[in-house]
Amino acid sequence: MDKIYRVLIDTQDEKGLVYKISSVFYNNNLNMVSNNEFVDKVNNKFFNRSEVSGNVNTEALYTELKETLPLKTKIEIIAPRKKNIVLMVTKESHALGDLLIRYEAGELDANILAVVSNYDTLKPLVDKFNIPFICVEHNDLSRSEHEKLVLKKLSKFDNLDYIVLAKYMRILTPEFVDAYEDKIINIHHSFLPAFIGANPYKQAYERGVKIIGATSHFVNNNLDEGPIIFQDVVHVNHAHKWTDMRALGRDVEKIVLSKALKLVLEDRIFVYANKTVIF
Amino acid sequence: MDKIYRVLIDTQDEKGLVYKISSVFYNNNLNMVSNNEFVDKVNNKFFNRSEVSGNVNTEALYTELKETLPLKTKIEIIAPRKKNIVLMVTKESHALGDLLIRYEAGELDANILAVVSNYDTLKPLVDKFNIPFICVEHNDLSRSEHEKLVLKKLSKFDNLDYIVLAKYMRILTPEFVDAYEDKIINIHHSFLPAFIGANPYKQAYERGVKIIGATSHFVNNNLDEGPIIFQDVVHVNHAHKWTDMRALGRDVEKIVLSKALKLVLEDRIFVYANKTVIF
Amino acid sequence: MDKIYRVLIDTQDEKGLVYKISSVFYNNNLNMVSNNEFVDKVNNKFFNRSEVSGNVNTEALYTELKETLPLKTKIEIIAPRKKNIVLMVTKESHALGDLLIRYEAGELDANILAVVSNYDTLKPLVDKFNIPFICVEHNDLSRSEHEKLVLKKLSKFDNLDYIVLAKYMRILTPEFVDAYEDKIINIHHSFLPAFIGANPYKQAYERGVKIIGATSHFVNNNLDEGPIIFQDVVHVNHAHKWTDMRALGRDVEKIVLSKALKLVLEDRIFVYANKTVIF
Amino acid sequence: MDKIYRVLIDTQDEKGLVYKISSVFYNNNLNMVSNNEFVDKVNNKFFNRSEVSGNVNTEALYTELKETLPLKTKIEIIAPRKKNIVLMVTKESHALGDLLIRYEAGELDANILAVVSNYDTLKPLVDKFNIPFICVEHNDLSRSEHEKLVLKKLSKFDNLDYIVLAKYMRILTPEFVDAYEDKIINIHHSFLPAFIGANPYKQAYERGVKIIGATSHFVNNNLDEGPIIFQDVVHVNHAHKWTDMRALGRDVEKIVLSKALKLVLEDRIFVYANKTVIF
Repeated sequence: MDKIYRVLIDTQDEKGLVYKISSVFYNNNLNMVSNNEFVDKVNNKFFNRSEVSGNVNTEALYTELKETLPLKTKIEIIAPRKKNIVLMVTKESHALGDLLIRYEAGELDANILAVVSNYDTLKPLVDKFNIPFICVEHNDLSRSEHEKLVLKKLSKFDNLDYIVLAKYMRILTPEFVDAYEDKIINIHHSFLPAFIGANPYKQAYERGVKIIGATSHFVNNNLDEGPIIFQDVVHVNHAHKWTDMRALGRDVEKIVLSKALKLVLEDRIFVYANKTVIF
Repeated sequence: MDKIYRVLIDTQDEKGLVYKISSVFYNNNLNMVSNNEFVDKVNNKFFNRSEVSGNVNTEALYTELKETLPLKTKIEIIAPRKKNIVLMVTKESHALGDLLIRYEAGELDANILAVVSNYDTLKPLVDKFNIPFICVEHNDLSRSEHEKLVLKKLSKFDNLDYIVLAKYMRILTPEFVDAYEDKIINIHHSFLPAFIGANPYKQAYERGVKIIGATSHFVNNNLDEGPIIFQDVVHVNHAHKWTDMRALGRDVEKIVLSKALKLVLEDRIFVYANKTVIF
Repeated sequence: MDKIYRVLIDTQDEKGLVYKISSVFYNNNLNMVSNNEFVDKVNNKFFNRSEVSGNVNTEALYTELKETLPLKTKIEIIAPRKKNIVLMVTKESHALGDLLIRYEAGELDANILAVVSNYDTLKPLVDKFNIPFICVEHNDLSRSEHEKLVLKKLSKFDNLDYIVLAKYMRILTPEFVDAYEDKIINIHHSFLPAFIGANPYKQAYERGVKIIGATSHFVNNNLDEGPIIFQDVVHVNHAHKWTDMRALGRDVEKIVLSKALKLVLEDRIFVYANKTVIF
Repeated sequence: MDKIYRVLIDTQDEKGLVYKISSVFYNNNLNMVSNNEFVDKVNNKFFNRSEVSGNVNTEALYTELKETLPLKTKIEIIAPRKKNIVLMVTKESHALGDLLIRYEAGELDANILAVVSNYDTLKPLVDKFNIPFICVEHNDLSRSEHEKLVLKKLSKFDNLDYIVLAKYMRILTPEFVDAYEDKIINIHHSFLPAFIGANPYKQAYERGVKIIGATSHFVNNNLDEGPIIFQDVVHVNHAHKWTDMRALGRDVEKIVLSKALKLVLEDRIFVYANKTVIF
């Protein structure tokens, strides 16, 4: 059975783009297994994700697409392979545990290179799954000093594709974020753009909301937390204490994060204008 | 068949309240058709809603409950009757129309005394249902002057129970709100506490959210829009323009408002600490 | 501004279809405003919906697509126009009322030619909106005799695009369904495939379900109620009587029907193998 | 801090029950931390769940309630303790894994005595958490013979409270079910009452449904799968293969099962008439 390659194209919109892209595939005798296209007229942008099978010569295909499509077109041709990810956590196990169980079941299309934490709380859980647990404590360190140590540990993984913040409860500095631009996925313990600060479930309880939610997003240096990938919610009522809301929120968080990560690992997401196009 | 009275009790928590309340009902030979109770330990509050049937002497029952329960206990005994409501609207018909259709079908347990608007846009729709339409234009008037005219119109309804803001797009002054404290229900064109300002759907589109929602709440003079009654959401994606989001949002808005209004009309809501207890 | 034409293509899957379709558009100097494509490998089917703008010669475009694409390809080129619909109802007003309010607000992209009913219960409501109300009573008539009378009324609308069963509570005979194949949209008072029979809310109550729902679908002569267009649900609990479930169900029903109808009116649906592909 | 006891009362409805119950608590100087009551008028049933704190003498309290309430009243007074549960699984790890992660985090208010399976597939996962894994293969055995072996293993746990079928894919015989009446909780891989048979996701795919769901329920010998505890759903579309639906369904399944189990462990459920009352 032929392998399936993913071709991602991000360019300015103009007439004939689908024709040009599909003609390149056709002339190379490739089969388009799937094709998704979106035009954002407000920003005059064109996005295309195709899955093609056949005898793919990645370099030649890239060159031909490059020559056919407008200047400045961004093209990615992605051969099928497992992405390499590092998980970062603090003390809560629900999001991490969900990913570990999927990993163990072979349902996570990625290699978990390591789990990094600022506490050793979750080491026993991670050890069960024979994944390296790297503890970088932040005691007595400035944020910057701590991050340098983390970055040093991460730098050893030269094949790292994505960092997944599975309830890593420290804010990353702009320097850290820049080092892994568009490569960090977070699960936000709230329904963005609400309740950004500490203990959002307590905030939500005190505000008396009837719905709580969670948001998975890429991390960038924007103030409002980066491009949103997936969100979901659950209804609550007055009888829920804030700890009940947190328990319900955790279930939403873990499912939202794993769905977002799946979209990332399948190369389904384009990021622009601080938002996402998802095919 | 006996009529069913609703008894609402709001007091400080202490031991024996359910016993004391139910003993009053029992000694008066009343049947408790339903009973709901909630204790908020954080605020040391006790709320109870009972439905009782039998030979109810409202005044005697009130007096006996008052003597049995702690000082400062708030007691309401509500005989079955249709509430009187006024709807306030601007130009959009979806929330108004939903209520009118329910009203026509006999599914709204209320009398709509009038529809008040700052435009005459919706007069043709309201006229179809033989409900008085009162237009109070705001042209050339200060907010305060305009509201005085509205208040004057409303003052003629001395039996008014609730004002329903069914997409009334002007902000009410504190004076107006005070005049109808805990009696104004709004549908907020957003998932509170997010996107409070103008054109929330455009804000949501630009932020790239994956969920939009609506919130029905009582109006008070708090900054963050008053005690929430009901909220709901709908999933959206990158392909939705902001006008698509608005169309989807309108469906959520009208259902959320009508569900909140039903809870209000059934006397199911206690308000305190800027939030609601709903039985 | 150029008008936008919808081009629907339904054919057997083979290599190069997107290329061939887009080349026709490109050679005719048409702009692809949007494009959606789906391949069902199980059934080896290919579906494509494009929106194109420019100088469209419908006949020439049809011919060229026909010559370019495989034999037996089904092609529809749809110029922008309002569809003509007839609503059929019995006694309940919620789904009808929802459509009428949207119609009045200009939010329903269709002409309502008439409302047909087997009772005159809803005549007063329909009259308010100046839409012809046609009552065809079924008293003393066999199902077949009654339908013949209805069909005769419908036959006067030679430009009829769709029949919307907005809570029409009689089962249609195969003859009626055949006369309007793939042109009848129903809202099913249940979450198909469950509770198909009479009074589904009572069935649901008695079964003690924790969720109820509604299903909009095309009507065909299959036993299990035809291709599903849209479904939604709402949570319920033990305290809901079956009439409460019905009230909640009605809200779901009307929103589900109006969403399905919107998809139909925008020509977004392909029907095959008793199911739908929706772009 | 006082321990909290749960008092469950299930009886025929009659006047004064809340008064009688609360008077017993009041006379014993107990504090009612929470109280929930439901009257089913159709079946003339009364259900009450109270949480009481104070100096509880279980036997005396039971006797006094028994003497005060109608004959045949069922009374349970439950001291705070962890329930003892056994999980039964086959080959899929998602529901099991979710419970193990909660267990490890101390978020499951129960002791997992063992995991029983008809395959050894999940032994490595269970071993990580130091929980006994008991494999009882069914090869060459009749259903009855196999179950006898399982029952023998289970009989060693004389303190067993509940059996959780966390994707145990064999149908239990009436004899097995009778042995643990109202003590077996299942997660059904479908949105009951639909798609009861094998491979429901494939059935759902072939039917072209737009929503899939999962149902957690008690197992009894009724044909339609027993009293429902909790259900939830997720939207799907034509682009989802049945394996995609299964993946989405697994997420719903595991959350639904864990929510249902939480309700069970907190003694919040009454079962009658093949349905549940849940406080």
